[in-house]
Amino acid sequence: MTKPRQPVITILTAPGEAEPPGTDAIRARAEVRQAWDEDSLRQTLPGTDIMMVTDFRTEALAAAWPAADRLRWIHATSAGVDALMFPALIDSDVVVTNARGIFDRTIAEYVLCTILMFAKDFPGSLRLQQAHRWQHRDTERAEGQRVLVVGAGSIGRQIGRLVRAIGLEAHGIARNARATDPDFAAVHGNDQLFDQLAIADFVVIAAPLTPQTQGLFDQKAFAAMKPGARLINIGRGPIVNTQDLIKALDAGQIAGAALDVFEEEPVPSDHPLWDREDVIMTAHMAGDFIGWKRALTDQFLKNLDGWQHDGTLFNRVDKALGYAGSH
Amino acid sequence: MTKPRQPVITILTAPGEAEPPGTDAIRARAEVRQAWDEDSLRQTLPGTDIMMVTDFRTEALAAAWPAADRLRWIHATSAGVDALMFPALIDSDVVVTNARGIFDRTIAEYVLCTILMFAKDFPGSLRLQQAHRWQHRDTERAEGQRVLVVGAGSIGRQIGRLVRAIGLEAHGIARNARATDPDFAAVHGNDQLFDQLAIADFVVIAAPLTPQTQGLFDQKAFAAMKPGARLINIGRGPIVNTQDLIKALDAGQIAGAALDVFEEEPVPSDHPLWDREDVIMTAHMAGDFIGWKRALTDQFLKNLDGWQHDGTLFNRVDKALGYAGSH
Repeated sequence: MTKPRQPVITILTAPGEAEPPGTDAIRARAEVRQAWDEDSLRQTLPGTDIMMVTDFRTEALAAAWPAADRLRWIHATSAGVDALMFPALIDSDVVVTNARGIFDRTIAEYVLCTILMFAKDFPGSLRLQQAHRWQHRDTERAEGQRVLVVGAGSIGRQIGRLVRAIGLEAHGIARNARATDPDFAAVHGNDQLFDQLAIADFVVIAAPLTPQTQGLFDQKAFAAMKPGARLINIGRGPIVNTQDLIKALDAGQIAGAALDVFEEEPVPSDHPLWDREDVIMTAHMAGDFIGWKRALTDQFLKNLDGWQHDGTLFNRVDKALGYAGSH
Repeated sequence: MTKPRQPVITILTAPGEAEPPGTDAIRARAEVRQAWDEDSLRQTLPGTDIMMVTDFRTEALAAAWPAADRLRWIHATSAGVDALMFPALIDSDVVVTNARGIFDRTIAEYVLCTILMFAKDFPGSLRLQQAHRWQHRDTERAEGQRVLVVGAGSIGRQIGRLVRAIGLEAHGIARNARATDPDFAAVHGNDQLFDQLAIADFVVIAAPLTPQTQGLFDQKAFAAMKPGARLINIGRGPIVNTQDLIKALDAGQIAGAALDVFEEEPVPSDHPLWDREDVIMTAHMAGDFIGWKRALTDQFLKNLDGWQHDGTLFNRVDKALGYAGSH
């Protein structure tokens, strides 16, 4: 028996990023190459069968694309694949898979935490603590408040499950409306977004970045929201128009925002968002639990099992939609 | 028919505190008097049938006690009744009731929020935000972490329910161990406290202040805890020895504390706790949702219904125990 030819796998990281933990386990089953920018990618792409892309912001692949001569599968170690949705890749036969599932639970925990922090005014308490000030306030009961999750994919569903588990009312927005749903009181169609924005206490963006969602939260959307409502964005930064968000906060159209993702990342140090007391900011880390990078490699290896066994792959991205879709 | 004599109800507030919202509804059914200190209480107690005590820190009642000549029932609008457990009242036939139930849900929401804030390092994120610093960190998955709730009364049970609902493991400590329990994976007896402290990721104090719990969390208890564990106190301040807590934090015996109650309240502005980055402080407000004071009056009125109808009262405090006990 001849051993079948080992696949060539190129790992595309961000410049300066270390190779993912667990790469040795990939190396045991494949020829592994590394790239970090357009130039190194042009060197490594010829002969590459599979790519594992850990840099969710990369523009290098689109630039180096013509050098791909036998590429069949690209795995993104992120939930969002927006950086990979360039026309040449969409039009090709190359299969794209993503990290669907890995971040669901921890992102939902993050979202639940920000909802409760807003309800209990913990940002205010932490500021008072820094000022050594004892100041009692009455705060909100979270129970029964209405949460609208925009994007009912695997992350959005986990958010619905968690907030419902402790007695909040979760509604979803998705392509297709569903009157009955295991994770939401109801899932409403995209055309119901503005009606639903008007009655939600918390609006959570858990949608992929696509041409349809880019800038979706603009002046008009904020004007449709309840004055006391809070926005939570754990999807992608460009879904929110930051300048419109700031205007809406200033005008009292909404009451606060918790943002893990931003139009520009890292957020520049002179950005006006940092100083806002009505905004909670984190550094694109909502889902990144201790051990997440190894978990991503393990998920890729599991997919590689199927690919090497009979060519099947899970978490396939629907390139027409730009995300993994429901399955 | 002669109208039965209206009861005389004295409301004991903190000095300078306004009369509780809903007092007019009490006035419709009783002669209402107000007191706020020992002197005013000596004036109002003679002839008083019922007291409603809104100041959970009061020492006035113990001092003015000899002036009570027909007092039959004291209702405390708080969960903790420690300030009322003075010998003359304990030895008397006067029934004491409390606000059991009113704060359960919102205190449990507060506790869940602090658990998630520790897991996700939100205090760190808020400090980084103030410094305009973008700094990614990997944080904890809350799922599966072990929560020990010391005190399995109505508040402790609601905490157990909430944390279990989102996949944490809740254990209780109570007078009587119970292998099966609806709200906890298990309830362990007081004699198991130190064994349980050794394996809990989060320790929540939801116990009443009694001679048995005063200073229960001292050097020895902290030494028994897991080095990475966090303490959450929503019970009463004096259950924790503050100096020992600070030493345990400094020594790395435990990793953090969220405190809503303190040995001295308000906490003096020069207290060393304020500046600690491993401590989250709030101003004895964990349960105080918007509308809580009216809810307390409504609960008293409901109890007054039973008292006026056939003399029955709910939420009776077991004066030998110093809290409402299980029922």
